[in-house]
Amino acid sequence: MVSTDALMAALPRLQAMAGGIIVIKYGGSLLAGTCLEEALLGNIAWLRAAGLKPIVAHGGGPAINEALRRFDREPQFVRGLRVTDEETLDIAEMVLSGRINKTIVGRLQAFGAPAIGLSGRDGRLIVAEKKWSDGVDLGRVGTVSHVNAALLASLLDQGLIPVVSPVCADATGGALNVNADEVAVAVARTLKASRLLLLTNVPGVLADVSDPDSRIASLTPDEAEAAIADGRITGGMIPKIRSAVESVRQGVGEIRILDGRVPHILLSALMLDIDTGTRIHWNDK
Amino acid sequence: MVSTDALMAALPRLQAMAGGIIVIKYGGSLLAGTCLEEALLGNIAWLRAAGLKPIVAHGGGPAINEALRRFDREPQFVRGLRVTDEETLDIAEMVLSGRINKTIVGRLQAFGAPAIGLSGRDGRLIVAEKKWSDGVDLGRVGTVSHVNAALLASLLDQGLIPVVSPVCADATGGALNVNADEVAVAVARTLKASRLLLLTNVPGVLADVSDPDSRIASLTPDEAEAAIADGRITGGMIPKIRSAVESVRQGVGEIRILDGRVPHILLSALMLDIDTGTRIHWNDK
Amino acid sequence: MVSTDALMAALPRLQAMAGGIIVIKYGGSLLAGTCLEEALLGNIAWLRAAGLKPIVAHGGGPAINEALRRFDREPQFVRGLRVTDEETLDIAEMVLSGRINKTIVGRLQAFGAPAIGLSGRDGRLIVAEKKWSDGVDLGRVGTVSHVNAALLASLLDQGLIPVVSPVCADATGGALNVNADEVAVAVARTLKASRLLLLTNVPGVLADVSDPDSRIASLTPDEAEAAIADGRITGGMIPKIRSAVESVRQGVGEIRILDGRVPHILLSALMLDIDTGTRIHWNDK
Amino acid sequence: MVSTDALMAALPRLQAMAGGIIVIKYGGSLLAGTCLEEALLGNIAWLRAAGLKPIVAHGGGPAINEALRRFDREPQFVRGLRVTDEETLDIAEMVLSGRINKTIVGRLQAFGAPAIGLSGRDGRLIVAEKKWSDGVDLGRVGTVSHVNAALLASLLDQGLIPVVSPVCADATGGALNVNADEVAVAVARTLKASRLLLLTNVPGVLADVSDPDSRIASLTPDEAEAAIADGRITGGMIPKIRSAVESVRQGVGEIRILDGRVPHILLSALMLDIDTGTRIHWNDK
Amino acid sequence: MVSTDALMAALPRLQAMAGGIIVIKYGGSLLAGTCLEEALLGNIAWLRAAGLKPIVAHGGGPAINEALRRFDREPQFVRGLRVTDEETLDIAEMVLSGRINKTIVGRLQAFGAPAIGLSGRDGRLIVAEKKWSDGVDLGRVGTVSHVNAALLASLLDQGLIPVVSPVCADATGGALNVNADEVAVAVARTLKASRLLLLTNVPGVLADVSDPDSRIASLTPDEAEAAIADGRITGGMIPKIRSAVESVRQGVGEIRILDGRVPHILLSALMLDIDTGTRIHWNDK
Amino acid sequence: MVSTDALMAALPRLQAMAGGIIVIKYGGSLLAGTCLEEALLGNIAWLRAAGLKPIVAHGGGPAINEALRRFDREPQFVRGLRVTDEETLDIAEMVLSGRINKTIVGRLQAFGAPAIGLSGRDGRLIVAEKKWSDGVDLGRVGTVSHVNAALLASLLDQGLIPVVSPVCADATGGALNVNADEVAVAVARTLKASRLLLLTNVPGVLADVSDPDSRIASLTPDEAEAAIADGRITGGMIPKIRSAVESVRQGVGEIRILDGRVPHILLSALMLDIDTGTRIHWNDK
Repeated sequence: MVSTDALMAALPRLQAMAGGIIVIKYGGSLLAGTCLEEALLGNIAWLRAAGLKPIVAHGGGPAINEALRRFDREPQFVRGLRVTDEETLDIAEMVLSGRINKTIVGRLQAFGAPAIGLSGRDGRLIVAEKKWSDGVDLGRVGTVSHVNAALLASLLDQGLIPVVSPVCADATGGALNVNADEVAVAVARTLKASRLLLLTNVPGVLADVSDPDSRIASLTPDEAEAAIADGRITGGMIPKIRSAVESVRQGVGEIRILDGRVPHILLSALMLDIDTGTRIHWNDK
Repeated sequence: MVSTDALMAALPRLQAMAGGIIVIKYGGSLLAGTCLEEALLGNIAWLRAAGLKPIVAHGGGPAINEALRRFDREPQFVRGLRVTDEETLDIAEMVLSGRINKTIVGRLQAFGAPAIGLSGRDGRLIVAEKKWSDGVDLGRVGTVSHVNAALLASLLDQGLIPVVSPVCADATGGALNVNADEVAVAVARTLKASRLLLLTNVPGVLADVSDPDSRIASLTPDEAEAAIADGRITGGMIPKIRSAVESVRQGVGEIRILDGRVPHILLSALMLDIDTGTRIHWNDK
Repeated sequence: MVSTDALMAALPRLQAMAGGIIVIKYGGSLLAGTCLEEALLGNIAWLRAAGLKPIVAHGGGPAINEALRRFDREPQFVRGLRVTDEETLDIAEMVLSGRINKTIVGRLQAFGAPAIGLSGRDGRLIVAEKKWSDGVDLGRVGTVSHVNAALLASLLDQGLIPVVSPVCADATGGALNVNADEVAVAVARTLKASRLLLLTNVPGVLADVSDPDSRIASLTPDEAEAAIADGRITGGMIPKIRSAVESVRQGVGEIRILDGRVPHILLSALMLDIDTGTRIHWNDK
Repeated sequence: MVSTDALMAALPRLQAMAGGIIVIKYGGSLLAGTCLEEALLGNIAWLRAAGLKPIVAHGGGPAINEALRRFDREPQFVRGLRVTDEETLDIAEMVLSGRINKTIVGRLQAFGAPAIGLSGRDGRLIVAEKKWSDGVDLGRVGTVSHVNAALLASLLDQGLIPVVSPVCADATGGALNVNADEVAVAVARTLKASRLLLLTNVPGVLADVSDPDSRIASLTPDEAEAAIADGRITGGMIPKIRSAVESVRQGVGEIRILDGRVPHILLSALMLDIDTGTRIHWNDK
Repeated sequence: MVSTDALMAALPRLQAMAGGIIVIKYGGSLLAGTCLEEALLGNIAWLRAAGLKPIVAHGGGPAINEALRRFDREPQFVRGLRVTDEETLDIAEMVLSGRINKTIVGRLQAFGAPAIGLSGRDGRLIVAEKKWSDGVDLGRVGTVSHVNAALLASLLDQGLIPVVSPVCADATGGALNVNADEVAVAVARTLKASRLLLLTNVPGVLADVSDPDSRIASLTPDEAEAAIADGRITGGMIPKIRSAVESVRQGVGEIRILDGRVPHILLSALMLDIDTGTRIHWNDK
Repeated sequence: MVSTDALMAALPRLQAMAGGIIVIKYGGSLLAGTCLEEALLGNIAWLRAAGLKPIVAHGGGPAINEALRRFDREPQFVRGLRVTDEETLDIAEMVLSGRINKTIVGRLQAFGAPAIGLSGRDGRLIVAEKKWSDGVDLGRVGTVSHVNAALLASLLDQGLIPVVSPVCADATGGALNVNADEVAVAVARTLKASRLLLLTNVPGVLADVSDPDSRIASLTPDEAEAAIADGRITGGMIPKIRSAVESVRQGVGEIRILDGRVPHILLSALMLDIDTGTRIHWNDK
């Protein structure tokens, strides 16, 4: 394709999103300082330079595990569930809010993008309450109860890219660890984001998990319910899809489940007419 | 080039212009409803969709001549200079402000770009005073004395693309016809535009007008003076280059003299690393 | 009357309108560069100088007909209805948006009033959809579907007098010709204007069209329905009055049908206690 | 004159003052609840209704004297100068800030004008310092040192007419009585008023005080100095004229010394071409 | 208590009121230029300095009576009720709006607090309508019908402390005297004040008026109704308590009936954990 | 002291600082989760609750050393100077920006104060450049070159307390460690803070470091130079005092060097008339 054609191909998509908010969930397992990551962060910088408003929500599983080993912490389990005690939370917070968050911020700045790193505790950006799992006390683990939309809006208005660590504020000044997907969803819903992009390490929603060619390209809310009913969507994918459908109902323009292992996947999916990943959205007009 | 590479190539240029104002002089002789024009208007729509603020200043020579013939007007000359009497001005205004202006507005809207057409008279956007040519009265011809920057800024803030016809306001409610290049330059200087793009039907400034390969790609103010002194820039090009140098001195980021006959020339010149036309600018950092 | 008494007579009326919006429909047949027109435009300048916010909506029938003759266009009719083909629309647009619109703008500026001329296409100020007449295709003729109130409000806030040509935007960047009365009504309703003044060449609504002394001075919505029922209002006046009544219901403070042939009719009707034309309004308090 | 002509006569004057601030000094001796006063207050209401911003500064000599008699206060003098002791000030404040101020406020409201009464103490609107007269202690008498322009601007922006009593704030919360002319001048200079109108009970500045026909209609700063030098302006008029000249130099558009005994003098002087009183102003352009 | 402990004790209270509006009714009988009054005004200055927004509503009974005697006015009664004729109102206004109001303003300024004195007439701050007492004409006595919240909000935003005299505006520019308690209540309700403090010369609501130890410390709306039903609240206290309960229902955070004879009662009640006076409020959380 | 007296004692100080910015340097060695720390954080919460705008800049030396030991890092030295290599910086950043910063944020929130933690990298709040020590490469150590005042101002306007970690942004997205005192000084100067409070573990500036009773209570710029000249200020204290004097010259209202070991030292020093620590300031008025 001629280069100017590629630019022009983005025109209807830029207009459709019209300066909107793009929330990107960027999982811990994708963090490796690779070319892949460079492409991803460059894409985020591009979105902002083209007048959109990206927000990054990140996790950090592998790096936390490595740090726990350094501090000689043994993982604790109750009835098979991981428990986050105070010391584990302290270490996780250092890694998430002090290392991963600031690394992403710095790399975005290296691309000329003015990122600002915040944890859910800062300015009570994301308030959570303790989460119980069928009566089991999992320690300092929480679920989102409130997002400080005014603070995010103010940062976006200053042209900043918020990068959000999932350590959140409890009611009394303490911290609670929250799943990064949940943080991304809560932010996207509260701000009625134009797009919510969930980066995974699979090609999208698969009708048959053993067959990478069985990707479901697009789902409306009705189609999603039908796919659950007829068994094409199963297991752990069911709550993810239901959450996406609910986000569409609450005003998020479109959810995309994308393969983070594909270079420049953000621009491919958002700006060019490339069929990739799975879209959850209202019926196209 | 892979499509996402073309998009990423635009990143440093989008960041360098940072939501800035791009003034585009779009001459009458280029107006033909052709694919070429489509590409040009699509490019302008793209610039706005990507967060920049284009302003279009247009002329309309050929269409005016055709209309004059319709109205059985004989061109008038005094000592070889064309005279614009009241009736000629009336016809020129109908064509410029009523036909060409609204056609450009409509075509930009067809690309999804919210254009607004104004003549220099509207809201006293551009105030001119009568211009004399060595004591010869040329009639209703003027030179710019003031640009209403507040009105343009307000329209840009509303996300509109101003499309400006060169019929300007005089001091007492009358009209004066002004050269469209001069209008574009005055607007760019007053708003300290990031870029001023002059579309012509030549490949750029040529050191030897008979040799299309003698294009001068880039000129700093000092280089421009040197090129005038050593005879590489001559004749009618001298005032154009001096005006461009003066615009750089008054705060316009860069002037580009571009070949409007090349498809997608605006995106090529502004967003991709294609060497085309002539740049007048400060020394690169 | 002593001069200061005339000024003081305007006090309660200035207070009642309190910086409100005054939409003035100014028909093409009144345009003649006469003293009459001077008085009219001077009155509009006065309203703005006294803190009110006039908006002018104009037509231009006679001048369009003259231009069509110049371009050797034969009027086309289908089953007795005039058809506006593309070329007719082009000529009408030149005359309306390029000549009449800018002439009014210039004359208001000659009175020191900062007018800004726009057609319905500019900034998609007035969006129309194609209008069919009982299945007959009348060509490029439309009916108003949307008014861009934010743009008008922004111009009024800058102290400008919008002068609106009735060539409107369709959905895809094209133009549609709309009746100027309809434009004035749509603008007045959308902005909940304080006053809508329809200038005609009759003394007002006449109970007996053959008797100029049968003017109906004032109509409330109920009285209007009664006058239609008892036959005092007939024929083409019925839709006009119903539109006026509907405007009052939608929040326009008062509609005045005024005789544009009377010098200084705007100030007489709005500022002095002169019984002239026909008022449609809620019951007086 | 036809009534609409009177209105139109005001047009250039309304435009020249363009929503400007009009400070009106309204002396105590003019207060009588008469038709004259009605005309004056109606004129002020008119100015505001027409988009100007009047501010009233009042005195109240006769009413204070009457109240002092009621409270059996003997006037005190030191070397021939009246002394304002604490108790005299208390009574003067009740009359000025409690009675005259609120009466003017109420009468303007009766004209539909939203007046707000303030003394110089309120919000430290006018701060004064104690004034000595050649070493003689005159008690609680002051001279203006500061005007709170932000407070006045905020009230004017809300469409209110400030009515200012001349009892001013000292540095420590106490009160000082200030000459009402001085208050009006200080307010006009601080706000760079468009007009300062000083209502008196003479026809204007007289070259010969015994000859009412010797009125000087107009004075530029240079003419004023010349008139002082050649003896046409003498005695107590010299400081008044010098203060007016200084006000013009500090940015007040024009000072008018007007005869408050003439009905509707404000509208006559400001809005109609009636030669009355004395204007101090820069040379007319 | 250590001094810093006293400051820290105020922390939860400052946070609970969070920059809120505090309306203080300050009765005429408490005005004496005493240390007590100094403490009270100093407390008000403190509230503002600590980021709260106090508004003072005052009365002035004793000073009015004294002034009436000076002016040889005999109190008038109709069927046992005091009648306020025009002249009585004039004198009351001088005392209330001219003397007491300005004295409070000056004393607050002596504490460094930027107070602004207004009567209900100024800017039509408080509009009243004539009040009849069972068919008896009491003259110029009114009851509140409207509070100009925008004006008060604008003054508070400028950091000013409004001090409000209870002489209010009627519909036609005249004045009406209103009970100061009613003014305070109307202001607090309209602005949804955080606190309404009614200063009295009793220790609070007493279950047994002859027993100062029978103070009722706290009443929720339900408790208030119960206390009326069981006879603990009787006589003139019933309407006061019902008004307070209604204020709580209309959004006032809390009403405090406080003993104005206790030094520093405002800070004791609002900032320290001292049990004093009577609180009317919703159930504590 | 009676409690209300303590509150009233704070009145002149609250008024003198008038909603100003208070920058507090809070060193790492004071962090211990003790009552002392509780008092300190409570004091900061109090300042905000009372309408002031605190900003906290913190260090974290001891906690960094402990973490380095955990990660088996040996301190590196070149010619006796500590070197911060990349890995040391990573660990320091985790501790400073991930642990200490968020702990302070959480504790302030436990006091009801809405704190927001940021490192110098976030939003490029503090940009630094690499610092060399007499030609020795100390690694990732920097000195402040720019403070993003607009971001801090926006956060303060939202009522937030910024808590700033001293890891700063370099020009290309990397991090540089900066001395926390230098960060506090740079922030205070850029924002022209009302007060800059440097918490230390000494009683203030001592004329004789071996004599705790030799505290210098107050220094004007001139006195500071004299004290350096006469040998009362020596060694490492000289650059600190010169920095403080320079801050005063650049518009900081006052610098206080305070003993962080004294409970409630912030309120004692700022709000009560307690002579403690050392003040550097202009001559008192």
